[in-house]
Amino acid sequence: MPRYALLLEYDGTNFCGWQRQHDLPSVQKLLEEAAAPLNHGVPPTVTASGRTDAGVHAEGAVADLELALDLPPQRVRDAINFRTLPHPVVVRAAARVADGWSARFDCLGRGYRYRILNRPARPALEASKLWHVKRPLDAAAMHEAAQMLLGRHDFSAYRAAACQAKSAIRTLDRLDVARVGEEVQVTAEARSFLHHQVRNLVGTLYEVGHGRRPVTWPREVLEGLDRGKAGQTAPPDGLVFRFARYEPAPEWV
Amino acid sequence: MPRYALLLEYDGTNFCGWQRQHDLPSVQKLLEEAAAPLNHGVPPTVTASGRTDAGVHAEGAVADLELALDLPPQRVRDAINFRTLPHPVVVRAAARVADGWSARFDCLGRGYRYRILNRPARPALEASKLWHVKRPLDAAAMHEAAQMLLGRHDFSAYRAAACQAKSAIRTLDRLDVARVGEEVQVTAEARSFLHHQVRNLVGTLYEVGHGRRPVTWPREVLEGLDRGKAGQTAPPDGLVFRFARYEPAPEWV
Repeated sequence: MPRYALLLEYDGTNFCGWQRQHDLPSVQKLLEEAAAPLNHGVPPTVTASGRTDAGVHAEGAVADLELALDLPPQRVRDAINFRTLPHPVVVRAAARVADGWSARFDCLGRGYRYRILNRPARPALEASKLWHVKRPLDAAAMHEAAQMLLGRHDFSAYRAAACQAKSAIRTLDRLDVARVGEEVQVTAEARSFLHHQVRNLVGTLYEVGHGRRPVTWPREVLEGLDRGKAGQTAPPDGLVFRFARYEPAPEWV
Repeated sequence: MPRYALLLEYDGTNFCGWQRQHDLPSVQKLLEEAAAPLNHGVPPTVTASGRTDAGVHAEGAVADLELALDLPPQRVRDAINFRTLPHPVVVRAAARVADGWSARFDCLGRGYRYRILNRPARPALEASKLWHVKRPLDAAAMHEAAQMLLGRHDFSAYRAAACQAKSAIRTLDRLDVARVGEEVQVTAEARSFLHHQVRNLVGTLYEVGHGRRPVTWPREVLEGLDRGKAGQTAPPDGLVFRFARYEPAPEWV
């Protein structure tokens, strides 16, 4: 059957997350049901580059699916978008991909951004896209601490208890913290991430930003391999899945 | 009575606009009622740098008010923010200003941005902050056309029928059009604008972006002084009031 890749944008606020969960509203279920008319009425399985949690957003997630119909990718894109209305889940672009191509297993790199609104006043714009922190954060200290976490490590201290990955070894390629106006933005890139890894990293760097912990502390937490020692899991709202990288990239239309 | 300036952020989606209108929900009314406890229970008059229309947003509008109480500006900021909950209207910062200082009349420059999402798929993120245009726009042509509108002119062709300004003469200092990823962004700056001026400029440049009109057409419309000849008024959603400039700037806290 013809195989397609989808480039996805969604607002995770009112979803239980990417993954199908019984009758809860999930992004996966919405897309599968939207694609059913292109598959003789049977919802196809849609598999994503990464399963985001409830409240986490995506600007450029990638998913794959097989359909009974052989269609130009723009037809797939437009048909699914028509059927996801009025929900905030859209196919930005679609592509034909080879048999066996996998959005999850062929992905060579994933990128997230975490946005902290760091000012006394709560957000009026994009309230569901930000973690609001009133007290001033030292973004430079957070960045310095983050650099000590780069590279290949056992990230057990930063994984969720529910994480299903067999190994906690991951290679963190980028973890930048920068002040952008009233925001502190954390940019994370790796081939893959553990469950809650980005949010646990942000929650731990936050302690450094407040001056409650030294810049060496997140590295000590890493080496301790103990989830109980890390900071809080930062709230989902501030997190957005930005991109999944493939070589060659799908021919998006 | 002590006079204060407020630096405001608001999402205009569910308001009838800035200006008080009987029982409709306006940003002005919400702020005036929120400030009443700081003024012996009487809602003070809050006057803005600019009156935005229904659906138009603000990142950095400025307003002034007088209060019976002499308070540190951060107290004014926090007290109003507590009382505007849960509405998406916040005081980013406040400042004490001199008697007679006017957010409207002392303003030396105003800045707007208009965001067009230019791709086939509708927006899933920030849907109320964008004008969705499916067909590709030629942003370079729009920019070229915009440059011919800079300077001091009679902008009668670009003002709303309901515009109350005595003169339609304005000096347009900046009108840039640039493609930023999937968006086409229009940045407009002037000492002051006429009612609907930015949205009418965007709606007219849009005709050039589609190739339906030559790059010289918006200038011809300007010189014709006839509102009936310009393009449509672009929808309010894409417009955000970015800043109001003063010299010296209020001492925001």
